[in-house]
Amino acid sequence: MSNSYDIAYQLEKAIRESDEFKNLKKSYDEVEKDEPTKKMFENLREIQMKLQEAQFQGEDISDEDVQKAQQLFAVAQQSPLIANLMNAEHHANILIQDINKIISKPLQELYGNFQ
Amino acid sequence: MSNSYDIAYQLEKAIRESDEFKNLKKSYDEVEKDEPTKKMFENLREIQMKLQEAQFQGEDISDEDVQKAQQLFAVAQQSPLIANLMNAEHHANILIQDINKIISKPLQELYGNFQ
Repeated sequence: MSNSYDIAYQLEKAIRESDEFKNLKKSYDEVEKDEPTKKMFENLREIQMKLQEAQFQGEDISDEDVQKAQQLFAVAQQSPLIANLMNAEHHANILIQDINKIISKPLQELYGNFQ
Repeated sequence: MSNSYDIAYQLEKAIRESDEFKNLKKSYDEVEKDEPTKKMFENLREIQMKLQEAQFQGEDISDEDVQKAQQLFAVAQQSPLIANLMNAEHHANILIQDINKIISKPLQELYGNFQ
C-alpha cells in the first residue's frame, strides 16, 4: 500500500473529527429524531434531486416546479432544525470542496498543458 | 487552518510523489515532445470530450460518431507513446478514485441514512 493511501485514511479520520463533520452529524441526528421535520427534509431533498436531474438531462424545468421548490424551501427554513442542518451542510461542503481542490491540483496542472 | 487542510496538503504532496503520478507525468512529457503524437492525442481527447458532453446533455450519439471515435482510438493506440500514456492515465485514475472513495466515506455514511 502506497503512502498516498495511508495519508488518505488519515484524512478520512481528520474529516470525521472535524468540527464541520461533527456539527453536520449532530444536525442530521436532530432532524432524524423529529419525525415531521425528517419528513419535510426528505421532501425537500427529493425535489432538489429531481430539479438537479432535470438540469443534468437538459430538460426544461417549469416555472411551477421552481416555485414549488422555493415555497417548500422557504417553509423548511422556518424549522430551526432544518436551518441548522442546511447551515452545517454548507460548511461541510466548503471543507470537502477545499480538500478536493487541494488534492486535484497535481492532475489539473498536468492536464492544463493540453488545453 | 484545521487539521484536515494540513493533511490534504500532505496528500497532495504524496500524490505528486507517487509512482502513478510520476509515470503519468513522464508519459505526458514524452507525448508533448513528439509533435505528431501530441496532435493525435489532442484529437482523441477532443472527440472523447464531445461524446461525453453529448452524453451529459442527453443527446443521441450517432453510430457514425462512435465509429469515428473507435477508429481514432485504434489508430492512436498503435503509437507506443499514446499507449503508454493511456496506461499511465488508467493507473493514476485508479489511485484518485480510491482516494476519493476513502475520503468521501464519512459523508456517504451520513447521507446513506436518508436514502
